[in-house]
Amino acid sequence: MTFDVVVDVQLRPGIADPQGATIERALPALGFEGVRGVGVGKSIRFTVEADDEAGARALVQDMCDRFLTNPVIEDATVSLRAAQTAG
Amino acid sequence: MTFDVVVDVQLRPGIADPQGATIERALPALGFEGVRGVGVGKSIRFTVEADDEAGARALVQDMCDRFLTNPVIEDATVSLRAAQTAG
Repeated sequence: MTFDVVVDVQLRPGIADPQGATIERALPALGFEGVRGVGVGKSIRFTVEADDEAGARALVQDMCDRFLTNPVIEDATVSLRAAQTAG
Repeated sequence: MTFDVVVDVQLRPGIADPQGATIERALPALGFEGVRGVGVGKSIRFTVEADDEAGARALVQDMCDRFLTNPVIEDATVSLRAAQTAG
C-alpha cells in the first residue's frame, strides 16, 4: 500500500526562532496588526510504501528520529493517510 | 477573537526542489526504501486577532500574498481555528 505522509517539524518551546521573530517584527510595519507568537517550521511531504498503516507510521517515525529532524531542538508531527490508487 | 493559524507553504508543481531531492536520494543509503516524491516546504504558525473567522482568513490570505510566500513559485494552504481562550 502507498501512504501520503506529511511530517510537520516545529522548534520545541523555548528554542530561539529568529526567523519567526523577524516576521513578527516586520508585520506591523506592513500594516498587519494583532499577529503574535510567530513560529517557522518545515513541512516534509512524501509517499511511502508499506504493508499497513502501523508499518508506515513506524517507518516514518524512525526516519524522523534518525534523519528528518533534530530531536534535541525539534518536535515532529506525522500525518499519514492511504493514497488514492490511480485506476 | 483570537485565531490559531497554520500557513503551509509548498513549492508549486514543476518548481525544482533540491532539498527534497537530496532527502530522497539519501534515504536508501540509510535503509529506508519505498519513499518517493519528497517535497520540503515551510509551515508558519501564529495567532491573529480579528472580529470573525472571515476577517481573520482575509487578513492571513493578504499576508500570504504580500509577505509570507512567493506566489510565483509557492502555494499556501491556510488552516485557521478559534483559539481556546484561557479562563
